[in-house]
Amino acid sequence: LGVLFYYLHTVRFAVTILGSGAAIPANGRNPSSQLVEIRNHLLLLDCGEGTQMALRKFVPGIQRISHIFISHLHGDHFYGLVGLISSFHLLGRINPLHIYGVPELKEIIDLQLKHSRTELVYPLEFHEIDPDKAEIIVENEHFFVKTIPLNHRIPTCGFIVSEKPLKRNIRKDFVNTADVPVNSFEKIRAGADFVDADGKVYPNSSITTDPPRTKSYAYCSDTTYHEPIVNIIRGVNLLYHEATFANDKQKDAKEKLHATAREAARIALQAGVGRLVIGHFSARYRDPEILLDEAREIFPDTIAAEDGLTIEL
Amino acid sequence: LGVLFYYLHTVRFAVTILGSGAAIPANGRNPSSQLVEIRNHLLLLDCGEGTQMALRKFVPGIQRISHIFISHLHGDHFYGLVGLISSFHLLGRINPLHIYGVPELKEIIDLQLKHSRTELVYPLEFHEIDPDKAEIIVENEHFFVKTIPLNHRIPTCGFIVSEKPLKRNIRKDFVNTADVPVNSFEKIRAGADFVDADGKVYPNSSITTDPPRTKSYAYCSDTTYHEPIVNIIRGVNLLYHEATFANDKQKDAKEKLHATAREAARIALQAGVGRLVIGHFSARYRDPEILLDEAREIFPDTIAAEDGLTIEL
Repeated sequence: LGVLFYYLHTVRFAVTILGSGAAIPANGRNPSSQLVEIRNHLLLLDCGEGTQMALRKFVPGIQRISHIFISHLHGDHFYGLVGLISSFHLLGRINPLHIYGVPELKEIIDLQLKHSRTELVYPLEFHEIDPDKAEIIVENEHFFVKTIPLNHRIPTCGFIVSEKPLKRNIRKDFVNTADVPVNSFEKIRAGADFVDADGKVYPNSSITTDPPRTKSYAYCSDTTYHEPIVNIIRGVNLLYHEATFANDKQKDAKEKLHATAREAARIALQAGVGRLVIGHFSARYRDPEILLDEAREIFPDTIAAEDGLTIEL
Repeated sequence: LGVLFYYLHTVRFAVTILGSGAAIPANGRNPSSQLVEIRNHLLLLDCGEGTQMALRKFVPGIQRISHIFISHLHGDHFYGLVGLISSFHLLGRINPLHIYGVPELKEIIDLQLKHSRTELVYPLEFHEIDPDKAEIIVENEHFFVKTIPLNHRIPTCGFIVSEKPLKRNIRKDFVNTADVPVNSFEKIRAGADFVDADGKVYPNSSITTDPPRTKSYAYCSDTTYHEPIVNIIRGVNLLYHEATFANDKQKDAKEKLHATAREAARIALQAGVGRLVIGHFSARYRDPEILLDEAREIFPDTIAAEDGLTIEL
C-alpha cells in the first residue's frame, strides 16, 4: 500500500486554487495564487496576500514548495510572497527556495528582509525572467516550466507546467518469458533493445509499451484577449485563463487590459485545450454563475475557480 | 434616535482585535493589527498580512480609517499595509491617509507602488516617527496619539491613544431658571462664567459639571519586559501588552526580546492600568488558556485577544 501511495503521488498532477479573486479581496475570495503538485513537487504560481494562510488551510507540508513563479508586480499577485518567505525562515526551512520573477521583484524582497534585519536560514535563489519571451525557465527529469508572454498594463507572463515523459513500460509477457537480468530494466525502459544470452535481439518496440502521455497546465494570470497565447498553449490538458469581467463589461476589460469570460473561452477553443478554468473574478460578482454561463456558450468544458478547489489533470 | 446614535458614536472608544497571533499565522489567528474607534475616527495600529480581509469581515466602512500606525518593520506587523493602501486606491478613496512609521517604511511602500506603476488617487501622507522617543505624534480636538519606546530586536514603539477632554456640561437647573442666550452655551461649556442682563455673575463652577473623564488605550506591540514603559502608560484604562510566551519559555522570550504573560501582567500591575489584554501568542499555543492563567495570577483583570473581539473602553 505504501508503494502504491508513493506511486500515486509520483504521478499525481493537480492544481489547487488558493485565491480566485481579483485585485480587491471580496466575497471570501483571496487574491491570485495556485499550487501545482507535479510528480511529488510543489510549485506555487503567484502569491497574493493571504496565500500562506490559504496554504495552511488547504495544503499539508508547505515547506515542500520548491519553486515560486510570480507573473507580474500587481499587488494581488505577490503581496503574500515576503510573508511566506519569512514564515519559511521562522519555521527553520533547510531546502533552497527558487523564485522566478522580473528583476524588480528581487529589489522588493531584499528591501523588506533588510529592514526587518532578517538573514534567511535557507538559500533563496532568485531567477530573473523576461516576461516578453516564451522560453523554458525550469527543466529537470520530472517537469519543465515555460513562460507565456501576456498583454497587461505592466510586464506580465503566464506559465506552462509540463510533465517530462515517463520511461517506457516493459511488457509483462516479455519479462515472464525471456530471462531478463534486473540491471537491463532501466536501459530497456529508456528505449534500448534487449539481446539475450543466445544473441537473440528483441527490438524495444516489441517488448515495451508507450508510457502515459505527458500532460500540461497553462496559467494565464492577468491579460487582455491576446491571440499570440494560442500557439504557445496549444493542446494543454488544462488552461487557467483570467475572466475578470462578464460580457457587458467588455469596455472595462479592454481599458484595464483584462479579459471577459467569453474571451477566455475563445482562447481555450482556438488552442484546443482539454478543459478551461476561469478565475480572477471582479469583486462585483458575488457568484461567478454569469461568467461561467458566458464561457460555456463558447467552450462547454469550463469550470469556475473557487478557493480550495483541487483539479486533477 | 438618530441624534442618540450619532452621540453614541461620537463618544464611543473601542478597540477591535484584527489579528492576535505572532509571527507565523496559525491556529486561525492573523498577525498583529487592531482597529481603534475613537469619537467617530478610525485608527489602525499595525497592519499584518490579511488585515484588509479581517477589516472586511469585522468592520463596516473601512475607508473611514484615517490614520495607520506601524510599530516596527517585522513583517507580521506590516505586510498587509501595501495591500490595504492599494485597495483604498482601487476603491476610489478620496480622503487623505496618514501613515506613521520609521522612515524605512516609506521606502518599502514607494518601491512597491513604483513597480506596480500605481499613482494613488488619494493623498498618502507619510509621517516619520522616532521610536526611541515618547512624544505626541498626532493631536486634534478629539484625541491624541503618543509613542511608547519599546525594547525589541529592531527599533520598535507602541502607541497610546487618548481622548481629549470633552467640554463641560451645563447644569439643567441653571438653563431652566436663568435666561441664557443660546450663543452663550459654547462659551460656558468651554469654562466661562455667565453674566445675565442685570449684571449678575454666575461662576462657571456653579453652573456646569465636569465632563466624563478622558480615557486612554496603550498598545505595546512587540517588546521584552521593559520597565520604562510603566511611567509612560501609567493609569491608562486599557493596556494591550504582547505575551508571546508562557513562563516556561522565559528563556526564549529573553532571547527573542519578547515578553511572557507574567511579564505583561507585571507591567500592567506596576502601571496601575484599568484592564489588560494580552496577545501576539506564539503559534505553539493553540489555546491561550495557560497564558491567561499566568497573567491573571498577577493581574486578575486580564483578557486574551481573539480575532474579531471588540473591547469597549
